[in-house]
Amino acid sequence: MANEFSIIDKYFKPLGEAIASPNVVMGIGDDCALLNSKPGHQLAVSCDTLVAGVHFLEGADPEDIGYKALAVNLSDLAAMGAEPAWFSLCLSLPEQDEVWIQGFVKGLASLAQQYNLPLIGGDTTKGPLTVSIQIAGYVPNNKAITRSGANPGDRIYIAGDLGWPYLGLMLLNGSEVDLNGNASEEARRQILKPNPQIELGLALRGVATSMLDISDGLTADLGHILKASHVGAKLNLPNISKALPLRSMDKHIQWDAVNFGDEYKLLFTVPAECIDVLERIESELDCSLTCVGEITENKTLIDEQGRTIQAKGYQHF
Amino acid sequence: MANEFSIIDKYFKPLGEAIASPNVVMGIGDDCALLNSKPGHQLAVSCDTLVAGVHFLEGADPEDIGYKALAVNLSDLAAMGAEPAWFSLCLSLPEQDEVWIQGFVKGLASLAQQYNLPLIGGDTTKGPLTVSIQIAGYVPNNKAITRSGANPGDRIYIAGDLGWPYLGLMLLNGSEVDLNGNASEEARRQILKPNPQIELGLALRGVATSMLDISDGLTADLGHILKASHVGAKLNLPNISKALPLRSMDKHIQWDAVNFGDEYKLLFTVPAECIDVLERIESELDCSLTCVGEITENKTLIDEQGRTIQAKGYQHF
Repeated sequence: MANEFSIIDKYFKPLGEAIASPNVVMGIGDDCALLNSKPGHQLAVSCDTLVAGVHFLEGADPEDIGYKALAVNLSDLAAMGAEPAWFSLCLSLPEQDEVWIQGFVKGLASLAQQYNLPLIGGDTTKGPLTVSIQIAGYVPNNKAITRSGANPGDRIYIAGDLGWPYLGLMLLNGSEVDLNGNASEEARRQILKPNPQIELGLALRGVATSMLDISDGLTADLGHILKASHVGAKLNLPNISKALPLRSMDKHIQWDAVNFGDEYKLLFTVPAECIDVLERIESELDCSLTCVGEITENKTLIDEQGRTIQAKGYQHF
Repeated sequence: MANEFSIIDKYFKPLGEAIASPNVVMGIGDDCALLNSKPGHQLAVSCDTLVAGVHFLEGADPEDIGYKALAVNLSDLAAMGAEPAWFSLCLSLPEQDEVWIQGFVKGLASLAQQYNLPLIGGDTTKGPLTVSIQIAGYVPNNKAITRSGANPGDRIYIAGDLGWPYLGLMLLNGSEVDLNGNASEEARRQILKPNPQIELGLALRGVATSMLDISDGLTADLGHILKASHVGAKLNLPNISKALPLRSMDKHIQWDAVNFGDEYKLLFTVPAECIDVLERIESELDCSLTCVGEITENKTLIDEQGRTIQAKGYQHF
């Protein structure tokens, strides 16, 4: 049977070597990787873990697992307005199943190639199936878009339709959902292979005052911005409905879908005078940006009629 | 019950905030951490995963787990001659046990404080107990000590006594080992709380031609240097015995102990003309460096009598 080192040579090294990058002095194969810094830039670093049976179903397609593990990390770079630079991988596997590894690496490779993102190192161990990826990106000094810059009067935007992953998980769990063929496919794609919005994140540098990606659900994630920025918000619920894939859904299901999370769509704030720029970005990137509310001085979360909204969202424990 | 965010605020944020570092622009709490680069330096990055039941015993003291998880990563920086800069943590936990987390954080904190190493981010998820740490350090441009610089004629050194972790694991497993009290304590300490040799790694910049830390066992790890440097080596077995804690051990057990790994002691090569420098380093750092052989042109691994040595070491699967 192949040992750890031959698995690394055969499957993981090519994920570094095939992607030429001026950032990487030395990749996989020593005690550490060596990376160049980029003059005038800071490094944005994030990591995310996916656990079998928690973040994906036991028996899930390894290609989907590899894709999503990298997608959720890329989404964290997108949320800072950072340009992808490199990633590393800690992989625990119950057994050394080469067919599984091949599929997994294929999923990683499709995004790594798209974003010119070399794998620079990692650790492969025996253990319950767990994938931890750490990603790094570059952002010009002091240009990162954090959660703490929202100001009263700023408009709140979401990029794309919310709610698909909620429908997708229902389908994966075998629930009956009344969707036509195209919609079913889209719901499955969005839960299994979310698109990280890297290009949008870059385009929003100097435009958005605060930003994050919706992983915990709309109100929970908006709550993170409000807390970090010391502000409140008024949400326009009818506008949120416009950003839902199925507008005929029961209101309670709509609300659950909006707050389900696992979306990896950008939620951001922009000053009222920058709204024109968003129209240009929408047309250039062929994306859909929906205004769902406004930042307020009063540190509460209310709807368009002034009623208090209770934030809800994914609990990690 | 506390949720993920309050656990992060209570236990993990202080591990970042208590350790002031000019490298960290923004630590825990946003989608990414933001780090400054260090002019004239490259970044050395490594990651290691510890899995319950594989890398430590089920039910092990959480303080020991936290300590060792960071120690093995620091050891990778030591092996490059890098200066510790920051680390991130991916932690999967079966349940949110605050007593466990407190102990774990205490173990992390003792090394993090010693090396002025702030925690900059991470991910806490539900799942089988798994600890993945990614660490980064700075090394002056082109001064990193890799595995590939060994030249024929260079002397091979190990830093410290080999074999303690082998004895330590026997003790943890309840085997009878004939050791006096002090030796038992040292064997347990070395398997549970290895010392990363950061100061030695820094002192060997410009002196060692190749280096790594002994995690897989002496001959397996020396094999990594030989392969990367395209050279061979002649080992002096009697000298290796001198670096063993128990010189009265049976020869076969000695050999198993030397090749057991999990040591985190530096193995390095130096040109013959630099040996004087090592004496100074030994006295300044109060460490013991033992010459165990010499690099040869012929790509084989032999003993002092010219007999071929079969490399053996830890298999990850």
